[in-house]
Amino acid sequence: MSPGKDEDSSLGEIGERKIIREIFLKNIPSSAAFDVGPGDDAAVLRPVRGKTVVTTDMLVEDVHFDLTYFPADLVGEKSILVNLSDIAAMGARPLAAFVGIGLPEGAGTSFVRQFARGMKRALRRYGVSLGGGDTVRAEKFVIAVTLIGVLKGPPVNRSGARMGDQIYLSGIPGLSHLGLSLLRDGCSRKKASRTEKKAFDRHLRPEVDIELGCFIRERKVATAMIDTSDGIFADLGHMLRASKAGATIDLSEVPVSAGLKKAALRFGYEWEDAALFGGEDYHLLFTASPKKVGILSGWTGKSRIHRIGSIDRKRGIYLQRKGRTVKLPGRAKPFFNHFAVREIKDH
Amino acid sequence: MSPGKDEDSSLGEIGERKIIREIFLKNIPSSAAFDVGPGDDAAVLRPVRGKTVVTTDMLVEDVHFDLTYFPADLVGEKSILVNLSDIAAMGARPLAAFVGIGLPEGAGTSFVRQFARGMKRALRRYGVSLGGGDTVRAEKFVIAVTLIGVLKGPPVNRSGARMGDQIYLSGIPGLSHLGLSLLRDGCSRKKASRTEKKAFDRHLRPEVDIELGCFIRERKVATAMIDTSDGIFADLGHMLRASKAGATIDLSEVPVSAGLKKAALRFGYEWEDAALFGGEDYHLLFTASPKKVGILSGWTGKSRIHRIGSIDRKRGIYLQRKGRTVKLPGRAKPFFNHFAVREIKDH
Repeated sequence: MSPGKDEDSSLGEIGERKIIREIFLKNIPSSAAFDVGPGDDAAVLRPVRGKTVVTTDMLVEDVHFDLTYFPADLVGEKSILVNLSDIAAMGARPLAAFVGIGLPEGAGTSFVRQFARGMKRALRRYGVSLGGGDTVRAEKFVIAVTLIGVLKGPPVNRSGARMGDQIYLSGIPGLSHLGLSLLRDGCSRKKASRTEKKAFDRHLRPEVDIELGCFIRERKVATAMIDTSDGIFADLGHMLRASKAGATIDLSEVPVSAGLKKAALRFGYEWEDAALFGGEDYHLLFTASPKKVGILSGWTGKSRIHRIGSIDRKRGIYLQRKGRTVKLPGRAKPFFNHFAVREIKDH
Repeated sequence: MSPGKDEDSSLGEIGERKIIREIFLKNIPSSAAFDVGPGDDAAVLRPVRGKTVVTTDMLVEDVHFDLTYFPADLVGEKSILVNLSDIAAMGARPLAAFVGIGLPEGAGTSFVRQFARGMKRALRRYGVSLGGGDTVRAEKFVIAVTLIGVLKGPPVNRSGARMGDQIYLSGIPGLSHLGLSLLRDGCSRKKASRTEKKAFDRHLRPEVDIELGCFIRERKVATAMIDTSDGIFADLGHMLRASKAGATIDLSEVPVSAGLKKAALRFGYEWEDAALFGGEDYHLLFTASPKKVGILSGWTGKSRIHRIGSIDRKRGIYLQRKGRTVKLPGRAKPFFNHFAVREIKDH
């Protein structure tokens, strides 16, 4: 399904400037972040103390989401959330978003309004201002968000994991992947179990914990941090390569939701596969020296933190499972490779 | 034509991380701009004196460019230039670029390499660092660039034009539009006249004058400034609406290249149409108080500055032509409206 023309006006009749002015810039979150806000050649940010942090992510229809099961407002919300997740992984706070949108010729205004409503919901919730953007015609619906944040103090890089560090995860992994399976299978939310409902939510509206990222950075708990957009295996891999280190994941310590085991089997995979290789959970994955882990007990926020393994070797990722330790192959299930999507029929 | 698979590897075989690492991050301009450069969750900019300026623009295959006549390296170059033009129009200097790229499944590595080569050429030429990006699969080739710049002092907004100000343009308008006509007509550069060659260049590789933008801002010459991405008529219109003012363009003062009149006729339009309504020249259009215009004689850079009219009424754009003054209709030829592209068969 493409964002079909509604009974209301088509975008061609309205024009780019009007779309931006009437849909995106109406009721946008406070522009307190700007000296010059949207509508000029470029935005000028109001100076703040700290360093400027920048990240960018692109979402493409039928690659990252399918409009048959992904409502336009949730696409708008998620386009902001996936970028917020990168800001959280640096231990920074978000300030301003810039949004490039490619809209199919036939898209109607009510579709665009719905998308913008979700986007603005996420911006408001996280206190982010909309600084500007670009709206163009495209074959498929595509959204490119750049998020600017501020960092007071040194960031938490990916490259600082050291031998002896413990590995932590800020939530239950695999739920987003299960949610995707359920959505693709056409499952109704009404008939879903509690775990399945959580899975829907995790995939459609990931929870990003900016406060936890800041807590970890401010208390200097972590030696390295990343968000799990590609899944534990892939993202831990990125961190280990940057840190020139290896790790063992203790499967008995990886948290699992009661219904996840059963629900995963329905789709022919074990919950461990979803937990290790499923992407888009957008949790924080970080390493900490044993001397610092006591600080984590001071965390009183919403996200639950779980120790899932340790940095205990020079390279590779090993899995400890039922008393046996096995090395995971270097390129296990590339869920995250959009270019190879046809082969793996997933993500 | 789409960016077809080359004899070399397809992107699906390589994977996103490798594309980014081996193609985009190889030989990138100095990362002097960053505390944390590409490869982490987000980039951290090294602090600089001045305010942060941000702009974003999206280019879509078959909407903004056609690969049958637009070489991939020039697409890469232009994706940076169109954003630099917005930075210039604020009187700012560029610092760092963030690039989101959507690549068709069948695109080969040599195509991507060619694109990246052009992009890096523009970055180097203007001293801009590549801070990061996102590479995803897409139906059509799409590029979203966010450019971050720095501004030392107040910016030049669009909204400051005042009654009595003179209107200036930093080059000969209409050449990019002629270039587009020639390219679409399949004209060969070899057989082209001198003006036609200039037109090719203006469309494929617009000249962006960062120094002129800075000169104008630093000397406080301009009351308002914009870049002519949509054409004089449309961009002057944006400026006038923001400034709540009206203007008269004196056509006898609008500079014209000797061959433009003849060349334009070949495509069934007058040179004035190309000059006023043709987009993508990426010149600077600005207004200055008569008291300040003397300062412009101190400009010794490459761009030639031409006075083309004045702010002499409360609203609307009027055209003075052969002794007669006519009001231009509010919505003259929407060359800039990509959503209405089918109707107007242009831009």
